[in-house]
Amino acid sequence: MNDIQVLHDSQSIRFRRPFGAVEAGQKVKISININKDIIVAIELIKFDGTKMNMGMNKEYLNNGEFKYSVEIDTSDALGILEYYFILIDGYDRVYYGNNDNHLGGVGQIYTYNPVPYQITVYEKSFVPRWYKEGVIYHILIDRFYNGNENKIIDNIKGNSFIYGRWDDSPMYIRDSFGKIARWDFYGGNLKGIIKKLDYIKELGANIIKLSPIFKSPSCHKYDTADYEIVDEMFGTNGEFRELCKVANSKGIKIILDIVLSYTSSDSKYFNKLGNYDDVGAYNSPNSRFYDWYKFITYPYRYESWWGMDDRPNVNSMQKEYVDYIISGDNSIINKWTDMGVSGWFLNVTDELPDEFIELIRKKIGEINKDTVLLGDIWEDASNKISYSRRRKYLQGNEVQAATNYPLRESLINFIKGYIKSDKLRQKIMSLYENYPRESFYGNINILGTNDTERILTVLDENISLLKLLIAIQFTLPGVPLIYYGDEAGIKGGREPDNRRSYPWGKENKMLADFYHKIIKIRNNEDGLKKGKLSIFETDPNVFAFERKYENESVIVLVNVSSEAKLIKEINLSGDYVNLLDISEKYKFAGSDSVITIFPYDLKILRRI
Amino acid sequence: MNDIQVLHDSQSIRFRRPFGAVEAGQKVKISININKDIIVAIELIKFDGTKMNMGMNKEYLNNGEFKYSVEIDTSDALGILEYYFILIDGYDRVYYGNNDNHLGGVGQIYTYNPVPYQITVYEKSFVPRWYKEGVIYHILIDRFYNGNENKIIDNIKGNSFIYGRWDDSPMYIRDSFGKIARWDFYGGNLKGIIKKLDYIKELGANIIKLSPIFKSPSCHKYDTADYEIVDEMFGTNGEFRELCKVANSKGIKIILDIVLSYTSSDSKYFNKLGNYDDVGAYNSPNSRFYDWYKFITYPYRYESWWGMDDRPNVNSMQKEYVDYIISGDNSIINKWTDMGVSGWFLNVTDELPDEFIELIRKKIGEINKDTVLLGDIWEDASNKISYSRRRKYLQGNEVQAATNYPLRESLINFIKGYIKSDKLRQKIMSLYENYPRESFYGNINILGTNDTERILTVLDENISLLKLLIAIQFTLPGVPLIYYGDEAGIKGGREPDNRRSYPWGKENKMLADFYHKIIKIRNNEDGLKKGKLSIFETDPNVFAFERKYENESVIVLVNVSSEAKLIKEINLSGDYVNLLDISEKYKFAGSDSVITIFPYDLKILRRI
Repeated sequence: MNDIQVLHDSQSIRFRRPFGAVEAGQKVKISININKDIIVAIELIKFDGTKMNMGMNKEYLNNGEFKYSVEIDTSDALGILEYYFILIDGYDRVYYGNNDNHLGGVGQIYTYNPVPYQITVYEKSFVPRWYKEGVIYHILIDRFYNGNENKIIDNIKGNSFIYGRWDDSPMYIRDSFGKIARWDFYGGNLKGIIKKLDYIKELGANIIKLSPIFKSPSCHKYDTADYEIVDEMFGTNGEFRELCKVANSKGIKIILDIVLSYTSSDSKYFNKLGNYDDVGAYNSPNSRFYDWYKFITYPYRYESWWGMDDRPNVNSMQKEYVDYIISGDNSIINKWTDMGVSGWFLNVTDELPDEFIELIRKKIGEINKDTVLLGDIWEDASNKISYSRRRKYLQGNEVQAATNYPLRESLINFIKGYIKSDKLRQKIMSLYENYPRESFYGNINILGTNDTERILTVLDENISLLKLLIAIQFTLPGVPLIYYGDEAGIKGGREPDNRRSYPWGKENKMLADFYHKIIKIRNNEDGLKKGKLSIFETDPNVFAFERKYENESVIVLVNVSSEAKLIKEINLSGDYVNLLDISEKYKFAGSDSVITIFPYDLKILRRI
Repeated sequence: MNDIQVLHDSQSIRFRRPFGAVEAGQKVKISININKDIIVAIELIKFDGTKMNMGMNKEYLNNGEFKYSVEIDTSDALGILEYYFILIDGYDRVYYGNNDNHLGGVGQIYTYNPVPYQITVYEKSFVPRWYKEGVIYHILIDRFYNGNENKIIDNIKGNSFIYGRWDDSPMYIRDSFGKIARWDFYGGNLKGIIKKLDYIKELGANIIKLSPIFKSPSCHKYDTADYEIVDEMFGTNGEFRELCKVANSKGIKIILDIVLSYTSSDSKYFNKLGNYDDVGAYNSPNSRFYDWYKFITYPYRYESWWGMDDRPNVNSMQKEYVDYIISGDNSIINKWTDMGVSGWFLNVTDELPDEFIELIRKKIGEINKDTVLLGDIWEDASNKISYSRRRKYLQGNEVQAATNYPLRESLINFIKGYIKSDKLRQKIMSLYENYPRESFYGNINILGTNDTERILTVLDENISLLKLLIAIQFTLPGVPLIYYGDEAGIKGGREPDNRRSYPWGKENKMLADFYHKIIKIRNNEDGLKKGKLSIFETDPNVFAFERKYENESVIVLVNVSSEAKLIKEINLSGDYVNLLDISEKYKFAGSDSVITIFPYDLKILRRI
């Protein structure tokens, strides 16, 4: 079959309809064009691995090609349904599958082991509007602001260190074995956040994602000691309630970050150091917490997070644990949601069983349908495999959206010139295709988090490039997240350097102004919040796309090269204004329209 | 000469007169008893190593022995004059020298290489009375007391850490190479000392030895950055003047600890990090400080203290340096002495050339004869050899007294049972013999310092043993030093654990009471401050001695065993009172007198 020509483009409705993920039960029409009259079948692979193939109907096209089609029923295919084509010509047999980057769109011929295409089949898809149209401000509490008079720090923990100055750079204090010897604190607290709510509101964010608030020995508090109370250095449960109340009154929602796959060994549950009155699992096999943990040789050996013995793993589906965290009437989820929390971010989601996440989602839905559940997932969440099992994160009963690390990586690669705009387009289209629509629009679009280097440092402190990147972040579908201080120009390498204190009074004014401007544009445009995405194929160094909602249309064009670019491929008609400079107006006339973009510059054009 | 019997006891005036060290020019009569009529010569070795021998005069004694005598002229023998005896019987020749512990007293026969006896010959000997009759309280400023309102810490250095709580245990924050990564502070300051002067006075101390006050990056400040100003976290020069003024008004003198053999590399003189406006030696060979240092390859390689590149060594005798520190009219020594300092403690004395120390002593004498100069010397200071050169510390033109580490070692060994009282006696008598009398009475008698483990920890936290040790410390000749917090029961191993913060409000009351009592006894008794020392030979587990001044006599008896001891060897006559319990009175009648000392108990008997 040397002379054969084949085409299937999973992202074109000419070949697959509807576009992208589908709700279970929806029919999907799939077709493939071939320049030869042969036998074509489609091989379908369900979520559980079972395979099935179906013959395809042939239709002669005017141009001499044949179109082979089939309609797939997804009723029985929850999860992801994979497919590729089998082409049989006499004794010859080849396959047509997804491209070998697994990115969807136009595929390729394989003689064996074809990479399948993916159709995500979800059960339901719902993301609350306040969330999917919001802007998130992500705060590490200790590093944000100390709201006390005279910057006094309350209830400082024993054997800890306080940074001499607010603007000292962070470091971990380790012993000679590399273990943390003492925890380090700047003294940020809940009162500080309450005092800065107006700052956050004025910036344009309307969601705050807080680092864990629960009592814990560490500065970051990912190792929980007591899920029932706010850490005493951060404040009190009363102050947290106050924070939620004041924030909500200003139209700002609070999302809590929580780790549920392990606790601190120095917790009231495990109590290795005997700091708690409760009998911990480590103290006695009769402890009511004993069954929460996974002991190998009691009490000294037990399963733990990455083998760190100060973070014993929890047996998540253990009944009392599930009751305590989720199901009981006074469960942790109940307690804090009642206090005013609007969403939960499940840290290290991969470590939690699907059943456990489902129970949380169910509970949250019962309390308030408008509460959101978010996942901390580093790859394409629609087909994530962890511990050799394909996960059900986005099927509808677990998280509603997740951190968009794949987008972060692609955007950085493009901005730094490692990939061109066609590749970036492919990467984004792949997510657009694979994610349930609501989850795609709910994606947490990040440039950096507490787990990555600071974006300004990643870009070698090039503010011009950062502005281009921010512009794309705030105009693509998804919920943009600002990692506290990125708007002020904080730099920082790997942890803990990426967790510096907020530079109050020493902000990069130019960058902050740009953030204010772009967030305002985002918040004002339904097109940017809700519009469909179309990415143009244009100059390799220009990334250009349209966001379209009802009659509104916003065109974003970003030039990452050192040369001015004349863009002719986009057939715009009518009057447009550059939202970044409203004195800049355009009249386009279809295929004659030319848009000039200066080096390292961008335009956000809105139809008027 | 197998049957020969020989006796010389350098500590008995029957064999050497006068006892101990002598002022140059004084004649010393030396004799040796031998049971045979032979030829005896004395070999004399001067400080510069030149040897000379003299024949000895023979005298027949009634008991059949012969006494050989000679009178030595010390006019020409400044430093130490060593001697041993050469015994010649026909072709036979043996030597009689010091015992092989080098401790003086009764010696021994050698067939070759005899260990010589030592006569210390000093030029002059003067120690101011306020000092030699005082009690020192030694403070590490950062660890003592924060005198600010609300315990606020002023002027915290950049990239430093503050202990979370005052009672956190100290640790050094090191990088993976073991170097200090950040300095650690508790926040003690000069204001704190001013506020605690009444505490110190009430305790009974009348001298405060301060850890270095000068600006410096570290918490201990042994690495000086600017000799002209008080470190900004400790306070101001004005506050230091105030401290001296208030202290002096309460009868408390201030002694400053100073390091003059190296500076910090982060100093205004070296300025490696560029933190100072001055052009430092590291910044340019044209720096006025360039010649202070010893560069090997400019600017990266230079001589430094123990190879630590943050402590460059100073070329002490460099003219500008000498002018700056000592000789100039506005020298560092002038400046601080004028502010109210009564004494100087030369840290790492061994690193300073004799000529340099002489210049300091001369300068101090010119400013105020009553200012004292003290040495930080870890061995017998009368015969210390450092860098292969015999030092002139105690000859009269350098330090007036030094830290008595040899006594500390001997006392600990005795209290812990490693040596018996006869050995302790020998050790102490050796110092008594070798030191110029004034320097012996000026010895800084320590149980611990910032360079040793805490004494309570050395004694395995045995308070009973510590009380015995303190009693000896405060009743022997020498100036007792209390390392801040030893009186409160601070524990601590090696540095930095020996530098914990003072446990205000958590003092060991019993121990503190004993300190108060023993210091009061010391301060009330001229016998203990000025009296001559005689150590009794008695039970191996009992250390007993008399302090006698004019008509006053104080007998100290310490039993370090678990059995009661009946002491009969001390022929006391007359009425005595136990100063530790004045209801306990005795009437002794010479050789019939028996004193009972309970296990781990002591008595301080004073004639009434």
